[in-house]
Amino acid sequence: MKLAKQLEKLGTETAFSVSAAAAAWGDKGNKIYPFHLGDINLPTPRNIVEATDKAIADGYTGYCPGAGIPELRAAIARDVGTKRDLNYSAENVSIQSGGKPVISKFIATVMNPGDEVLYPNPGYPIYESQIEYQGGVAVPYAYLETKKGFDLDLDSVKSKITPKTRALIYNNFQNPNSAESSQEEIEQLAELAIKYDLWVLSDEAYFEIQYSGKPESIVSLPGMQERSIILYTCSKRFAMTGWRLGAAIGPTSAIDIINKFNTNFESCTTHFIQKGMVEAIEGDTSGPDSIIEELRRRRDAAVAGLNAIDGISIAAPNSTFYLFPNVTDIMERKGFTDIDQLMDEALIETSVSFCTRKHFGRLLEGETNHYLRFAYSGIDIDDINEGMAKLKNYFEA
Amino acid sequence: MKLAKQLEKLGTETAFSVSAAAAAWGDKGNKIYPFHLGDINLPTPRNIVEATDKAIADGYTGYCPGAGIPELRAAIARDVGTKRDLNYSAENVSIQSGGKPVISKFIATVMNPGDEVLYPNPGYPIYESQIEYQGGVAVPYAYLETKKGFDLDLDSVKSKITPKTRALIYNNFQNPNSAESSQEEIEQLAELAIKYDLWVLSDEAYFEIQYSGKPESIVSLPGMQERSIILYTCSKRFAMTGWRLGAAIGPTSAIDIINKFNTNFESCTTHFIQKGMVEAIEGDTSGPDSIIEELRRRRDAAVAGLNAIDGISIAAPNSTFYLFPNVTDIMERKGFTDIDQLMDEALIETSVSFCTRKHFGRLLEGETNHYLRFAYSGIDIDDINEGMAKLKNYFEA
Repeated sequence: MKLAKQLEKLGTETAFSVSAAAAAWGDKGNKIYPFHLGDINLPTPRNIVEATDKAIADGYTGYCPGAGIPELRAAIARDVGTKRDLNYSAENVSIQSGGKPVISKFIATVMNPGDEVLYPNPGYPIYESQIEYQGGVAVPYAYLETKKGFDLDLDSVKSKITPKTRALIYNNFQNPNSAESSQEEIEQLAELAIKYDLWVLSDEAYFEIQYSGKPESIVSLPGMQERSIILYTCSKRFAMTGWRLGAAIGPTSAIDIINKFNTNFESCTTHFIQKGMVEAIEGDTSGPDSIIEELRRRRDAAVAGLNAIDGISIAAPNSTFYLFPNVTDIMERKGFTDIDQLMDEALIETSVSFCTRKHFGRLLEGETNHYLRFAYSGIDIDDINEGMAKLKNYFEA
Repeated sequence: MKLAKQLEKLGTETAFSVSAAAAAWGDKGNKIYPFHLGDINLPTPRNIVEATDKAIADGYTGYCPGAGIPELRAAIARDVGTKRDLNYSAENVSIQSGGKPVISKFIATVMNPGDEVLYPNPGYPIYESQIEYQGGVAVPYAYLETKKGFDLDLDSVKSKITPKTRALIYNNFQNPNSAESSQEEIEQLAELAIKYDLWVLSDEAYFEIQYSGKPESIVSLPGMQERSIILYTCSKRFAMTGWRLGAAIGPTSAIDIINKFNTNFESCTTHFIQKGMVEAIEGDTSGPDSIIEELRRRRDAAVAGLNAIDGISIAAPNSTFYLFPNVTDIMERKGFTDIDQLMDEALIETSVSFCTRKHFGRLLEGETNHYLRFAYSGIDIDDINEGMAKLKNYFEA
């Protein structure tokens, strides 16, 4: 039986093959050090679990509105608005089963086939997959490595805008490189979006994973709210990755369409989980606070572990739970040209599992440096130290 | 800000406007008799709730495979296979957040823009919406009213097959008209699907809502398994409409693609709900059995209530929880030409809320009869009796 032709353009998250390889190696009796997945091995805060159990017991088991229950839409509008000095109301919020659905629905809402969409590369691989699957042209913009981390390459954004550019995908607090824009960088990016009348998907999945200071959103800048959809997720902040709850937040012209997609694709998002989520946002915050504290300890351990390795030098990012070290020197030392070789051999030699730059979008033209991506959200601190010590031995050999 | 042009082709479930009108009328202090929604006002069986609560407590709160957890995929494969005399394994099952996602993903998997897809009309409105939104041509086939209910109009199917026909959507145990195919009807339909090499979406949402006998699936016929995707849902059988869990079941060539869509659109379906669902399928069945018993009592009351009305004659369907009475005589008596008039006035005069034929796909050419759709799944038996008595007074006036 023939399948649809357009499927040739559908990409995926190749990182899942890393999980599969790690699991297979683990099944052989090896203790895996899992730095590959952005999952969180911490319990969801107790008050959220209790509110959810109660919602099931109270019978919130039937359909609810496709856009989400009004009280959760209002709670997210208040929370997101307050933290960004913006006014949102319930009508600006469309509940989703996670943050990820916002990507495909944003693209379907604003892009025509043949339109160009700017997206970060390296970046979350579903951007590239969905732009191309839906018939658009995925135009990557790059990052510049600095001593402090990564800066967005604004010149690369500017040089790639054409009359066909329809939208910009922007992921401050970036996966995989943890890049955090300066105020100036955000302002210049907003200026471009306004000048060229672009829609913006502001992927703010890690907005609340901050180790100090107050995060900034590009949507807070004048002229941006009316052209921006915020990707919001409960996954990271509340250790709720497997619960599947998130939201799209933006102007009602787009949110009404996204609600219509909900009706077409899913009917609604799980009713009782939405009740539990109201407690997550409006209730006791000691749970999410201690998640951040634990992640900070892990970050410090992982950064120290990497910096102890000859040939790696990395600054501690202030947000996300990812590290993206440049391992070009180590590749040279090992005599490897393909980063997969390093990843595959490291798993066998050390049982340390990680992703590489290749899992985050197609390589850019002229790209010569090599990077690995470590997630420290799904591994305990003792295992971080053990794994990093093993990696040091192997990388330095 | 401009939106995507393709959105002009996106339909919706207009039945939600009936919910809104009923809610608004209720807010004015009226007691609503809710026959409009296919929701279930019965609790989810206790063993499922307990297994789900335990899964949350046991920490099944992180990501799981996009295709679903292996034990649930295997459990559904066994259950669906056994009941249809078919062999399926876990690889044939892709877990979804409800039955509805299977519709859009099936179409995306098999249809190219410009292809024709046959779909039942009246029928679930998302078929029409998704075929057209995804760039296909939605070709309706019809039903013929009989004394016992509705037969699929096989001549209308046959006459509409062209070289461009790519797929057939078939909903045995039909929403809204409760049509159940005879063995002969299923065989003839299967013959057409095989002869013209069509993919088949077999929407079996109501396969387990049966008041007597053993349901038949078209997929059980020779030559059908390799061309069919079954739409499976936990919503109706287990009173889990708001939990959002279902599955696509079919040949791995298509299921692998649907799994890739999962990775692109949702990451995965809620982890702990999948654990609870294993208990639903493999555990104690007294819960779902009593749901059927209660639905049977309601069916009998609703059918009796409708038949007591002068001008309505309806047979008791053996499956689903819908009634689709012909009200052409009542429309004539009232002097109405648009069924909306009857629906709107009935709400004001009786507080009985229901859908009409117009909520289930565009009217067919030459269609002159008028129908209402009553769901008896979300209303208690006393209210069924009360509401039907009010309706009798109003319809006969």
